[in-house]
Amino acid sequence: MLIVMDHAATAAQIAAVNESVEKMGLRPEAIPGSQRTAIGVLGNQGYIDDSAIRNLAGVREVIHVSKPYKLVSRDFHPDSTIVKVGKVELGGDLPVVMMAGPCSVESEAQMLASACIVKQAGADILRGGAFKPRTGPHSFQGLGVEGLKLLRQAGDEVGMPVVTEVMRIGQLDDVCRYADLIQIGARNMQNFDLLKEVGKLKFPVLLKRGMSATIEEFLAAAEYILAEGNGQVILCERGIRTFETATRNTLDLTVVPLVQQMSHLPIIVDPSHATGRRDLVPIMAKAAVVSGAQGLMIEVHNDPAQALCDGAQSLDGAGFTQLMLDLRQLKF
Amino acid sequence: MLIVMDHAATAAQIAAVNESVEKMGLRPEAIPGSQRTAIGVLGNQGYIDDSAIRNLAGVREVIHVSKPYKLVSRDFHPDSTIVKVGKVELGGDLPVVMMAGPCSVESEAQMLASACIVKQAGADILRGGAFKPRTGPHSFQGLGVEGLKLLRQAGDEVGMPVVTEVMRIGQLDDVCRYADLIQIGARNMQNFDLLKEVGKLKFPVLLKRGMSATIEEFLAAAEYILAEGNGQVILCERGIRTFETATRNTLDLTVVPLVQQMSHLPIIVDPSHATGRRDLVPIMAKAAVVSGAQGLMIEVHNDPAQALCDGAQSLDGAGFTQLMLDLRQLKF
Amino acid sequence: MLIVMDHAATAAQIAAVNESVEKMGLRPEAIPGSQRTAIGVLGNQGYIDDSAIRNLAGVREVIHVSKPYKLVSRDFHPDSTIVKVGKVELGGDLPVVMMAGPCSVESEAQMLASACIVKQAGADILRGGAFKPRTGPHSFQGLGVEGLKLLRQAGDEVGMPVVTEVMRIGQLDDVCRYADLIQIGARNMQNFDLLKEVGKLKFPVLLKRGMSATIEEFLAAAEYILAEGNGQVILCERGIRTFETATRNTLDLTVVPLVQQMSHLPIIVDPSHATGRRDLVPIMAKAAVVSGAQGLMIEVHNDPAQALCDGAQSLDGAGFTQLMLDLRQLKF
Amino acid sequence: MLIVMDHAATAAQIAAVNESVEKMGLRPEAIPGSQRTAIGVLGNQGYIDDSAIRNLAGVREVIHVSKPYKLVSRDFHPDSTIVKVGKVELGGDLPVVMMAGPCSVESEAQMLASACIVKQAGADILRGGAFKPRTGPHSFQGLGVEGLKLLRQAGDEVGMPVVTEVMRIGQLDDVCRYADLIQIGARNMQNFDLLKEVGKLKFPVLLKRGMSATIEEFLAAAEYILAEGNGQVILCERGIRTFETATRNTLDLTVVPLVQQMSHLPIIVDPSHATGRRDLVPIMAKAAVVSGAQGLMIEVHNDPAQALCDGAQSLDGAGFTQLMLDLRQLKF
Repeated sequence: MLIVMDHAATAAQIAAVNESVEKMGLRPEAIPGSQRTAIGVLGNQGYIDDSAIRNLAGVREVIHVSKPYKLVSRDFHPDSTIVKVGKVELGGDLPVVMMAGPCSVESEAQMLASACIVKQAGADILRGGAFKPRTGPHSFQGLGVEGLKLLRQAGDEVGMPVVTEVMRIGQLDDVCRYADLIQIGARNMQNFDLLKEVGKLKFPVLLKRGMSATIEEFLAAAEYILAEGNGQVILCERGIRTFETATRNTLDLTVVPLVQQMSHLPIIVDPSHATGRRDLVPIMAKAAVVSGAQGLMIEVHNDPAQALCDGAQSLDGAGFTQLMLDLRQLKF
Repeated sequence: MLIVMDHAATAAQIAAVNESVEKMGLRPEAIPGSQRTAIGVLGNQGYIDDSAIRNLAGVREVIHVSKPYKLVSRDFHPDSTIVKVGKVELGGDLPVVMMAGPCSVESEAQMLASACIVKQAGADILRGGAFKPRTGPHSFQGLGVEGLKLLRQAGDEVGMPVVTEVMRIGQLDDVCRYADLIQIGARNMQNFDLLKEVGKLKFPVLLKRGMSATIEEFLAAAEYILAEGNGQVILCERGIRTFETATRNTLDLTVVPLVQQMSHLPIIVDPSHATGRRDLVPIMAKAAVVSGAQGLMIEVHNDPAQALCDGAQSLDGAGFTQLMLDLRQLKF
Repeated sequence: MLIVMDHAATAAQIAAVNESVEKMGLRPEAIPGSQRTAIGVLGNQGYIDDSAIRNLAGVREVIHVSKPYKLVSRDFHPDSTIVKVGKVELGGDLPVVMMAGPCSVESEAQMLASACIVKQAGADILRGGAFKPRTGPHSFQGLGVEGLKLLRQAGDEVGMPVVTEVMRIGQLDDVCRYADLIQIGARNMQNFDLLKEVGKLKFPVLLKRGMSATIEEFLAAAEYILAEGNGQVILCERGIRTFETATRNTLDLTVVPLVQQMSHLPIIVDPSHATGRRDLVPIMAKAAVVSGAQGLMIEVHNDPAQALCDGAQSLDGAGFTQLMLDLRQLKF
Repeated sequence: MLIVMDHAATAAQIAAVNESVEKMGLRPEAIPGSQRTAIGVLGNQGYIDDSAIRNLAGVREVIHVSKPYKLVSRDFHPDSTIVKVGKVELGGDLPVVMMAGPCSVESEAQMLASACIVKQAGADILRGGAFKPRTGPHSFQGLGVEGLKLLRQAGDEVGMPVVTEVMRIGQLDDVCRYADLIQIGARNMQNFDLLKEVGKLKFPVLLKRGMSATIEEFLAAAEYILAEGNGQVILCERGIRTFETATRNTLDLTVVPLVQQMSHLPIIVDPSHATGRRDLVPIMAKAAVVSGAQGLMIEVHNDPAQALCDGAQSLDGAGFTQLMLDLRQLKF
């Protein structure tokens, strides 16, 4: 931590800051400059809470050098983490893992038809939502545990591991019974209680980036899970909120190589939620793979026009099959 | 809902859209223009899920006229709602209600000292956090139920109702036992399960705006609570996330008169979290009152330099007392 | 400047950084930490261009301590600047200065009628646009020099100094002939050539914040003007671009006290452009004054329903007169 | 245009709106709904200025169906535009065009060395800045006309057309004398006077997206150029401003396929300015090509560590040569 003093800070103010630093068990070291004094803070083992210092008299700015995460950092864990979902492995230089399926589980027939489509096209993991977060209370909210069973059944039928979202701690037992990979949605990225609970499990987790989360906050959220002992975490970029309204969100692909530099955890991309438009999904899926994504999550529905949720961003069977062919052609 | 067709949309494409609208039990009505056709959708009683239509061939854009909320709307409920917290009433043209206290409950002594300060200065409701959402897992996480008891005890001692944040459904019983007003934090604004549960209670709720929530999403979140039968909701603006980094968040005061036009629910402002800086809190508190805020929430600590959480944005006793005096002088 | 090295940076990498710093004529000083080394850079007289260092091997981050402005900083110029526009003075603790008038000069009759309204209500400076920046090329673009003459004529008629926007260097001669205060619009805040030219004049300047400019960039833009010798600069907050679409922009009132801490230049607020809605202008104008604004700029039109530009955000005579009365009642 | 009335709008209010619409020479058509009335506006040939209507009593919202551009729209001009720069053609399904060179022209030796590098690696167009927009006034501002000459000389030496930025109208003559393609930078995207002037030329133009410009505003800016008669416009995505600070800007690749749907103009990507980091440029360049970019603009310097400007984001010779090889391998 670096504490930058005002141009006109007095010796007494500098002494008071030094004292506060020492009270925290740390060591202040003055860095005199031609225009102002700065105070380096030494001796910490990680991120420091600066609230006792930030507003002391004469302090102009507090600059953090340590980050609010450490276990997820590649700095301290150079080897890439491989996450295992059923028999599927994801991470490092392994081939891109395809997760695909409908937004919501709607019925046995729909789930099975969708599963057959994605399996036949070559997907690795089946997705399907049983508990749905919806912006307004009057929309379809998911089938609940019944949906979990239908998802599991469809996965078993076609021989694929399954991923589904958990929205609250009370659903964890059910989700772990029926799924192979637990998804934490963007709206829950900073639901710290939920993060801690999944951190106590021996179960792989897919953590989606919050729609206005910085990369630092995204990694700090993953840190909550690792701090409890669960290192099987996959990160997922799904678009951020900006002033642009022509797409549902703004897909931030630069985050992929950046996170791979900063962290040993794998990162995948969800172009369906990022763009919100079926016609943009295939091209952005390819761009995501070229940017280094270690997996993709794609919404596929056997009959998008009848989908109860997010039909506008779902590919149909033909569209997804074509995308899989195109991805196999990709050489980069 | 209005469906705008492409300039070159064919008659068959228009017919297909009409058919889809009718399948949803609604009535399409063509609005031919000089450059393109639009289709008005009539017969709905509220917001329509457009996902079956948005990506049909020939559709250029779908424009919503209805909003994803109705119960919170002033359009359908012209009279302002008054929320009752203990003996304190808030809303409509009632005097501004002051909520104040420390970010976290840290100890019996700290809580009582802070309560005495805010009571003496004239605050109406005592705040204090027992369950704390923190960005990184290595920061102080709150005292839990023990903190709730200390908060209640301090409130009783000085004769003030108390408000505290609930972070998950499992904490609701405890929070309702010890508090008079339940706070849903910004990170949980779209934790829909939690919203539904508090909607089932007969208990006043303080709902904070998510840091990247639009006004429409904010009101739709409140709709979740009202839809379950609980109309005692206070909204709270606490700053939004923008590109600006000089303050913790960007305080959006225009939301105050705008929400009051759109909704009958009261709205208060939290300048402490919005600015993140003690020196900016008093002036923005006054600006908030002038913009029409029906209440304020201010962080006050008996010894901010020693606070375990958010000390940099907490006022001390002298600062808060001065603010209360200044607010009484305010004539507008 | 502080250079933070990777956890695993080698001694050779650190040496290479030190060498680069020395090549720039500066002095590196190592700050060894328990987890990594940082290098303080000493000897600079202001902001350092870090591009030769930022991407050297082993460098994790470069942190700036100095800011890209100095002349506008209160740190080096503690006394508040007073700007003189005709006989009107603005800044420091002087009374709030009201600038008002139509978005565009449309005709002699409209300009004179509007001038009479604002004069009678008590405004200090008359505004009117002769050169208009419009998003699309098919909208009304302003009357040009003819508009400048009508503005001047109306100002003389009612005895008020006038302010108008300049959009390019070639217009400066004309604008200086007819106006008393030159406005640089938000879209030109980083038109550095224009800033330098007005910096060479002895003429007061009103600089509007760019719609996505940080406070640091805003002050750095003003620095361009002061660096050429012109210190008569008024800053103007007019809303920033965020994800919120319910208002035209998001009015950032916290910038007012913050800029007053950081700089000696005065700052005013334009609630008309910030909100884009006539019904929100008066309340936000009052909030701006309470937040410390040293002036306001308000759009007023004698017949808003017939305005060629921005009628939706213009007050009429009755509305502006009421606002002036309300502002006189304001006690804070 | 669609005018949505309040739930409780009176017949008189609806009549007043109808009258205003008719005064504008347009035809109102009522669309009665179960909850409220909407009024469709027919008869317009393009975008309507709504300011006379938006704030009439009883109006809740005005929704635009037409866009503030038409000439750039693919709706009215289905064939892709090919832009010719010297002998290089760009657009439609033509091979990706590579523009490369240093941020600034610094000296004859630097410019020639850089030109040789990019030519040998296979680039098509040479870039180099003679007039530089810099955030602070104390940074290197470019060599001016002398820089233009050195750029031209280097281009001629290696046989490449050249592109350079124009910052103001007064520089247009010089830039047209020495360059083959005029660049309008992001900060000038809404410098409408400049856009109109280049619209009057018979000269190809590279228009960069403003850092907080929506796609609609970006296309409306291009409309200014086309409206004056110049159809040789290349669009360029170079990153937008968001809350994320880990990269210089947020690269929005989805804009590439989206603009290609909406407009016939070609679009290229500048990953150097978007990311601000040399190590991220190659991977994002590849992702841009896969997303459909019809060209790339890459900063290359013969000795980035000594660059006077943006060295941190410049590739050196080896880096750029490798990127060109990688791009040739790309199959998608």
